[in-house]
Amino acid sequence: MDDQLLSVESAVRGAARAAKDAQPVLARLRRAEKDALLHAMAEALVARADEIVAANAQDLAAADESGMAAGLRDRLALDPQRIASIAQQLRDAAALPDPVGEVVRGSVLANGLELRQVRVPMGVIGMVYEARPNVTVDAAGLALKAGSAVVLRGGSAALHSNTALIAVLRDVLAERGLPEDLVVGIDAHGREGADVLMRARGLVDVLIPRGGAGLIRRVVENAQVPVIETGTGTTHVLVDASADLDQAEQIVLNAKTQRVGVCNALETLLVHQDVAAEALPRLGTALAEAGVRLHVDERAAALLPAGVEHVPATEEDWDVEYLALELAVAVVDDLDAALAHIRAHSSGHTESILTRDLVSQQRFLAEVDSAVVMANASTRFSDGGEFGFGAEIGISTQKLHARGPMGLSEITATKWLVVGQGHVRP
Amino acid sequence: MDDQLLSVESAVRGAARAAKDAQPVLARLRRAEKDALLHAMAEALVARADEIVAANAQDLAAADESGMAAGLRDRLALDPQRIASIAQQLRDAAALPDPVGEVVRGSVLANGLELRQVRVPMGVIGMVYEARPNVTVDAAGLALKAGSAVVLRGGSAALHSNTALIAVLRDVLAERGLPEDLVVGIDAHGREGADVLMRARGLVDVLIPRGGAGLIRRVVENAQVPVIETGTGTTHVLVDASADLDQAEQIVLNAKTQRVGVCNALETLLVHQDVAAEALPRLGTALAEAGVRLHVDERAAALLPAGVEHVPATEEDWDVEYLALELAVAVVDDLDAALAHIRAHSSGHTESILTRDLVSQQRFLAEVDSAVVMANASTRFSDGGEFGFGAEIGISTQKLHARGPMGLSEITATKWLVVGQGHVRP
Repeated sequence: MDDQLLSVESAVRGAARAAKDAQPVLARLRRAEKDALLHAMAEALVARADEIVAANAQDLAAADESGMAAGLRDRLALDPQRIASIAQQLRDAAALPDPVGEVVRGSVLANGLELRQVRVPMGVIGMVYEARPNVTVDAAGLALKAGSAVVLRGGSAALHSNTALIAVLRDVLAERGLPEDLVVGIDAHGREGADVLMRARGLVDVLIPRGGAGLIRRVVENAQVPVIETGTGTTHVLVDASADLDQAEQIVLNAKTQRVGVCNALETLLVHQDVAAEALPRLGTALAEAGVRLHVDERAAALLPAGVEHVPATEEDWDVEYLALELAVAVVDDLDAALAHIRAHSSGHTESILTRDLVSQQRFLAEVDSAVVMANASTRFSDGGEFGFGAEIGISTQKLHARGPMGLSEITATKWLVVGQGHVRP
Repeated sequence: MDDQLLSVESAVRGAARAAKDAQPVLARLRRAEKDALLHAMAEALVARADEIVAANAQDLAAADESGMAAGLRDRLALDPQRIASIAQQLRDAAALPDPVGEVVRGSVLANGLELRQVRVPMGVIGMVYEARPNVTVDAAGLALKAGSAVVLRGGSAALHSNTALIAVLRDVLAERGLPEDLVVGIDAHGREGADVLMRARGLVDVLIPRGGAGLIRRVVENAQVPVIETGTGTTHVLVDASADLDQAEQIVLNAKTQRVGVCNALETLLVHQDVAAEALPRLGTALAEAGVRLHVDERAAALLPAGVEHVPATEEDWDVEYLALELAVAVVDDLDAALAHIRAHSSGHTESILTRDLVSQQRFLAEVDSAVVMANASTRFSDGGEFGFGAEIGISTQKLHARGPMGLSEITATKWLVVGQGHVRP
């Protein structure tokens, strides 16, 4: 290992260790103190908006020089109004109930031992994400509310913005007599720094990647610390033989077009053959009018009316997350064929059946093995805010620890408390 | 990659894929059918005990040839009586409630959407363990009861035993018209096979290593699939200033000597300085009489009566899991010093305070960040059986997903069911 890598290794491990050492102070704070901290951070962000906007301008200038795409540039840009809404996220986090201390299970054993499983802070949460500076504050606020220190690694394109935001949060911690290292940024150490964070066993209790499929794959493949895999949604809707087609038209349009670049947006539409001749012309026309380009199998192509733009689906279309006004469409023989298609191609995020048949609904809900399985509802409801969590760290597509939308509870751990009166094991 | 490695890769991935493809059949079985399967497996193991003992004899012969230590050889050995008790574990698993289907949370949202979080099978569980053939059957039984297929990789020293046991289980599956690949063994592919299993993303939902620290570290460092880290227990007991010394003597002896080679056995004893002059002679004498060798710091050494065998503790003694009649002993200034020692040296498994002081107990339970934190009880109670789980897959020392003793619930996942009546997101 050359000197530069060694120094990144030592800097990032040092940062993670500082966060770990700081965390017990936070763990002992009461809810009111944590909430007051978040409110103070919100005020400071608004008060120092000029400084943050100036730092952001440096990132934007670099983005313009490198020819960043307009959509990405927009997600990177900060102005006083956006900073105000970032600050509001901290106040919203303060308003949420404290997950720490909840008794999850409890009993008195036959021998008199009192047993309680209680919710405790995770410890140190690592976040690796892309160039959206709002994630920096949002992740820090939720982690702190849940009693954890946080180590943040944002996209290099947001380096100056993140550095400014983290400086504000750390200043507030210091002003309140709390360890600054409850919030640590490692952006300055580049991609090598992120790799060190992924291997920081014993220093990072969970690592949450938020971003595109490439980022998430890199984290999952390289991490030696526990990871929660988030994100990719190759989401399916099945229009069953008995679907209410008025509802189906509204739900399919909503799922595909209400917001396009999100993981719970619809990506593949399956239509039962018994209803395809009636449903596909309606759905195809409505989708085309909404600007959606259809990638269709042969049976679907034969049923679309003239004038509905479509292209033949390739094998890749069944596995792709378009995040765009594109939709894969297939006609399926029956429910079993739909279930098999979903089993083969779903990323395990969200699927929905549109049906009036009880048995179809029961089987779909029972047999589809995804984080969120729906009946007669738009996939866009697969969201922590919609579920009433008040906040969302991400949507887990793995089965371990958390599955589906993650709120504050999902970034806590538990421990067992056992109280005896001199108990020994016979 | 050479041909042999390529063929291991393809064989092990093929085995995991076969397990994944078989699992939906199991997921649809009702509890009664799963329980009948486990009873049939128990019967078959007893009926075919001769065959299993003969296979085990091959492993034992190889063990003798390689000069295996007596303790390890004993754990490897099978006879009809041990096979009967392995079979009984399957019947015990059958008697446990089915974790699948439990509604964990549920509500009706303001917009009328019905939301339920339900417990579902994990999918495919990978187990990597050492040369204890009973784990093969125990892990398979618990996984099947929880609705998951299982891929087993036992120690190479138990190859013939495991192969025979797995053959019996698979024969029973086939006889009952179920896919044999619900239970798959990959022992024949050696260490390379285990490495392939650790990287089988998309095929293995969770990998659980059971064994010594070396095995667990290898899995945690190399796995790309989600892992539950189990095991190592550098367990502490603090004798607080106000401890009842009669109870303390019983608990310390019980924690250290009731069973020695287990992860919840005591490894480090901390004694508050205010009680050390009274407590250490008593505890030291009782421990020495029980055959325990003490590794003591200077202050403890000064308080031990003549005739109590002890050696000076080295820095390593504070971090070691002896799994033997050895015990590290230190005198601490106060509760804060004890908490700092535990923070620095605990593996996060189990710690216990012996005290009559309410504030000491409260602080210890709140501030010690271990899977199981006790007051006035022997650490030996940190066990799934003792907690009333009826079975134990292992004891998790990580914070993600499961922490502390793991029963059937801990090897399930959840999913969200959302039922609407044509709901679209505004």
